Amino acid sequence: MDQTYIRDVSEHVGEEITIKGWLYNQRSSGKLIFPQIRDGSGIIQGVVFKKNVPERVWTDFEGLTQESSIIVRGRVRADERAPGGYELDVSDVEVLQTAEAYPITPKEHGVEFLMDHRHLWLRSRRQHAILTVRAEVIRAVRDYFDSNGFLLMDTPIFTPAACEGTTTLFSVDYFEDTTAYLAQSGQLYNEATAAAFGKVYCFGPTFRAEKSKTRRHLTEFWMVEPEVAYADLDDIMELAEDFITFIVHRVLENRRKELDEMERDISRLEKIEPPFPRLQYDDAVRMLQEGHEKGELESQFEWGGDFGSPDETYLSNRFDRPVMVHRYPAAVKAFYMKPDPERAELALCVDVLAPEGYGEVIGGGQRADDLAYLLKQIHEHGLPEDAFDWYLDLRKYGTFPHGGFGMGIERCMAWLCGIEHIRETIPFPRMLYRLKP
Amino acid sequence: MDQTYIRDVSEHVGEEITIKGWLYNQRSSGKLIFPQIRDGSGIIQGVVFKKNVPERVWTDFEGLTQESSIIVRGRVRADERAPGGYELDVSDVEVLQTAEAYPITPKEHGVEFLMDHRHLWLRSRRQHAILTVRAEVIRAVRDYFDSNGFLLMDTPIFTPAACEGTTTLFSVDYFEDTTAYLAQSGQLYNEATAAAFGKVYCFGPTFRAEKSKTRRHLTEFWMVEPEVAYADLDDIMELAEDFITFIVHRVLENRRKELDEMERDISRLEKIEPPFPRLQYDDAVRMLQEGHEKGELESQFEWGGDFGSPDETYLSNRFDRPVMVHRYPAAVKAFYMKPDPERAELALCVDVLAPEGYGEVIGGGQRADDLAYLLKQIHEHGLPEDAFDWYLDLRKYGTFPHGGFGMGIERCMAWLCGIEHIRETIPFPRMLYRLKP
Repeated sequence: MDQTYIRDVSEHVGEEITIKGWLYNQRSSGKLIFPQIRDGSGIIQGVVFKKNVPERVWTDFEGLTQESSIIVRGRVRADERAPGGYELDVSDVEVLQTAEAYPITPKEHGVEFLMDHRHLWLRSRRQHAILTVRAEVIRAVRDYFDSNGFLLMDTPIFTPAACEGTTTLFSVDYFEDTTAYLAQSGQLYNEATAAAFGKVYCFGPTFRAEKSKTRRHLTEFWMVEPEVAYADLDDIMELAEDFITFIVHRVLENRRKELDEMERDISRLEKIEPPFPRLQYDDAVRMLQEGHEKGELESQFEWGGDFGSPDETYLSNRFDRPVMVHRYPAAVKAFYMKPDPERAELALCVDVLAPEGYGEVIGGGQRADDLAYLLKQIHEHGLPEDAFDWYLDLRKYGTFPHGGFGMGIERCMAWLCGIEHIRETIPFPRMLYRLKP
Repeated sequence: MDQTYIRDVSEHVGEEITIKGWLYNQRSSGKLIFPQIRDGSGIIQGVVFKKNVPERVWTDFEGLTQESSIIVRGRVRADERAPGGYELDVSDVEVLQTAEAYPITPKEHGVEFLMDHRHLWLRSRRQHAILTVRAEVIRAVRDYFDSNGFLLMDTPIFTPAACEGTTTLFSVDYFEDTTAYLAQSGQLYNEATAAAFGKVYCFGPTFRAEKSKTRRHLTEFWMVEPEVAYADLDDIMELAEDFITFIVHRVLENRRKELDEMERDISRLEKIEPPFPRLQYDDAVRMLQEGHEKGELESQFEWGGDFGSPDETYLSNRFDRPVMVHRYPAAVKAFYMKPDPERAELALCVDVLAPEGYGEVIGGGQRADDLAYLLKQIHEHGLPEDAFDWYLDLRKYGTFPHGGFGMGIERCMAWLCGIEHIRETIPFPRMLYRLKP
């Protein structure tokens, strides 16, 4: 295919090349037209000099509308004044289609309008930058685990029973009279694969039927979940710290241009270095209570509760790097958490709160490995024991200390990119009132 | 964590190390016990010499059952006669749990029994090898696209309308009175992202409510789908050929040991080199009809139909590498296929059939880019036009030639590993009658 991608033009200075793409924008001044051409890999400015091109080429450019599909021929010229450092001296054009009046124009559009046109909105510079960072983050996640001895295990989406209570589970008609539920997590399954492979991770879409209409919630989001055999809570905290640092470094290394495009304050990310502060829940509560006394937090936080969004925002604003809050009251955490042997009312768990008020990006901890304790928990949480027979097997046939965590990609992305609403961090977001396009 | 993984013992010859894992098997001869210890990264044989260890250690080993969880200390010794080339001279053991009688024993088990115990079956050598190859294949897929200018685009699982007819779609209750459908493909969405990013791919679970109980069907499987702007059918065939070759090479390079473990005939994979034969549908039909005449195929195939499993098996057995069958009758293919400009009754599509009778692993082609044609197709297929408004937008705002394909990971895996039934290629398979564990 005779086609050069705009990202590669620096290797073709002085050469005639062919670009296949779309007209992004264009201005003219009498005998010159400056089309901005995009092909998905980048944007380059062309120069059409009336005197140097056949009349047909000039007329074709004059008639082009935004997003018209075009094949452009021209010579690459390095020019420091050009936006990307290169320009294209256009010699020919083939117009595949003159686009109808494009709905997204440089004027401001409401967010609902843009979301309704998400399939076109993706062509904008900002969305291009965000989703390029997303691909980089996902690549970094996989590189991290693949190169640290973890084996990828794709856990199932269809699950037979309501392992974590039905209220936030989506149900599916699974042939005749069977109901399946969409997985909220691959953790339980990866406790089984950790026993087979030692260090594992899953990474796929997860589903949560939460009726929350906040800037932090999607009904469908991607989550990565490592699980490690013979790891304790301290190991898991170290893993989370090392993992987050790796991702931030990678994004700073490879995606500075994109972060600049979205005007991210990069200095905030450059501060992300280990060690991350470890904050016991008790101390976090004290901090919240002091915040209330100083009038910085509206409501008074009582020991024993889980943190709400304002609490997380307050805590994470106290630190310039992610803070790891550990040992929450067992009562507010999932049934499978291992209790602290020194204080049984606490769970050996950790939440990692991203700075700048972004809140929880990671939740995890050590898993209960004692059969009797786990049985008691299942009963106390009113869960159906027979749904867990296979899970309980892991505590009968060589039970072992283990732990892991889950990180939601979109929340991590919102923090890294400095985006207020999580909906821009995924190509086609799904929310309470958003199932289209 | 003071722990050495078995995969790394070659770097610790002569050193005292600690292994944390499970007892895989054990035999003894009077004053010697030979425990096989696994930790998920490998299996090593230990040697416990009664004379050299405290009595407690000897007794502990004597009492061990299969899959008991243990922490073993010992010195690594290179020994050519040992299965992995190394042995562990055991000095100490800590028994975390003596396992209950393990249900999976060296005797033959029925496949339903093994599937019911999938969470434990994964600990076997063969399943370990298969899923290690799976992780390698997935890594290769991502490496291929990431290093060839494709951008990862996670397309949505929840879709608003029955884009491909409802018969094989799973439906989900999506808040109050809304119904969502689980995506069978990300293609339509990636036609939108290809216009924004040029070359894209999605890679995630897809869902098909097919009531087929065959060795080639799962209700939940992983599919990778590249989509390329400004590509025609020939480009897509070249891409498929190059992509498959890359994956086969990678598996041969990195996973020979695992292929040996499952007794795969590697010479069959070593033949996979480009060019792959291109076979027009017309010629494939002729081949099937000759097969019938020779008595090698039971039924007579008529021009115009889609191939069934026996047809695919027959065709793919004619070649020692994947065969690319192109230009099927448009009538048996999806509505979005571009018609062949030279013979409008044919679609510009391709199916890639894996050799050794494995059948279709890739389906793809060039997409219809003409608005009027696509509208006609949508009406003729009885599809709801308003569900496709956003998709039709792509033909209004700079329509462009483009194409792509989808490859099911599990079918590709079955071929690469020489596995008869697809159910062993994924950690927790989901089928018509299988939703547990």
